[in-house]
Amino acid sequence: MSEGNGKLVWIFPDGDLPPAGEPDLPLEGHESLIVLNTGDERADIEIDVYFSDREPELGLKVSVPARRVQCFRVDQPLGDRQFQVPFGQYALRLRSTRKIIAQIGRADVRQPNLAYYTTIGYGCD
Amino acid sequence: MSEGNGKLVWIFPDGDLPPAGEPDLPLEGHESLIVLNTGDERADIEIDVYFSDREPELGLKVSVPARRVQCFRVDQPLGDRQFQVPFGQYALRLRSTRKIIAQIGRADVRQPNLAYYTTIGYGCD
Amino acid sequence: MSEGNGKLVWIFPDGDLPPAGEPDLPLEGHESLIVLNTGDERADIEIDVYFSDREPELGLKVSVPARRVQCFRVDQPLGDRQFQVPFGQYALRLRSTRKIIAQIGRADVRQPNLAYYTTIGYGCD
Amino acid sequence: MSEGNGKLVWIFPDGDLPPAGEPDLPLEGHESLIVLNTGDERADIEIDVYFSDREPELGLKVSVPARRVQCFRVDQPLGDRQFQVPFGQYALRLRSTRKIIAQIGRADVRQPNLAYYTTIGYGCD
Repeated sequence: MSEGNGKLVWIFPDGDLPPAGEPDLPLEGHESLIVLNTGDERADIEIDVYFSDREPELGLKVSVPARRVQCFRVDQPLGDRQFQVPFGQYALRLRSTRKIIAQIGRADVRQPNLAYYTTIGYGCD
Repeated sequence: MSEGNGKLVWIFPDGDLPPAGEPDLPLEGHESLIVLNTGDERADIEIDVYFSDREPELGLKVSVPARRVQCFRVDQPLGDRQFQVPFGQYALRLRSTRKIIAQIGRADVRQPNLAYYTTIGYGCD
Repeated sequence: MSEGNGKLVWIFPDGDLPPAGEPDLPLEGHESLIVLNTGDERADIEIDVYFSDREPELGLKVSVPARRVQCFRVDQPLGDRQFQVPFGQYALRLRSTRKIIAQIGRADVRQPNLAYYTTIGYGCD
Repeated sequence: MSEGNGKLVWIFPDGDLPPAGEPDLPLEGHESLIVLNTGDERADIEIDVYFSDREPELGLKVSVPARRVQCFRVDQPLGDRQFQVPFGQYALRLRSTRKIIAQIGRADVRQPNLAYYTTIGYGCD
């Protein structure tokens, strides 16, 4: 049994859902959270969503199987409670039962061409 | 009471305000500093702005409430002294009373389409 | 003999090969893995490729000579087994015999203009 | 006297100078290395440039004054020996006498619109 690489807690301060954009574009505007579990046991994760002007939404449950990478679309209902992250500034914290590595990406199609950005999160234990 | 995640000091070497761009674009060119406080006490932060050719502007005070994320536009007057960061190269250091996580982003609309970039800062204690 | 800088293990959660794009564009859509070996001995590296819906492809062998940087195109056959990473979500883990530093980049030319992104990996031992 | 924040060694695996682009564009294609010295003594830095197919160019000397941020254009002659980094893959290592924080950025104007990318380096001692 391998323990897996990474950290138990991952933080992404800067979330801000872009508009989906026109339906005929090759890519829809969105933000995605990518989680890799290199270990041999399932990682159970609670996602906390922070806002500027209200209390956080805590403990949205997702999981990543052993030896798998999973993509969670943040513009779609998230976790066991199917929470819809609203437009506007938000931040994410992941708390996992197993070590994982997490990265976030944004694809913005507001203007005629795609703009991307990505960052590996801030990881801690 | 939860202590909150992150570090007390955050550094962003590469700041350079883009022009605001044409008024009819869907997004204004700007740089934003995003700070997340996951702890249960307010984080009082001093922002130091460094330049290439003059002494730094030290100790611009801002704060982030408990369990909140805040966005500080760097192209607008900043902190308690409402300091206007000039165009040209600058760098930021944040010194916080509580652990925080900080990220910076630039949206550049100089050409017909948006260009983005983001990075989580360099965190230390 | 210098030991070289960096870490033995590097992880990139978010891989997703973009289409190559039209043949007349100045740059082909692709993802590249860049590995720097600052040490005085060759780094032998095993690349593990993770997926969402199948077991990982483990132990693709590559190497980076002493005091060299190497670029590995992820859209082209990879490693000693010449494994072709398929379209769709994937993640990478590098395990090296010597300390290295690794970074990944994507160039997306799906829309008329280039979109870039890059990140230095998550490094651990 | 304040010691300054950061690390003594910074590494950037993925350098690749973009073409300068057409002369009438609002921004020239280039790569820039940004170094912040928050300390009260000058940081003397040696830049090592690594390549894919030849020995590295070691010890290009630059310095950053106390409490200043400096931008070094990598597409222009670099350091005391005014070394011209060629087109193609390269990597950078900075070795400093004082703690610093370093970030690299690329602005690519090959296609009609700007593409950006940035990353804070991998820092170690």
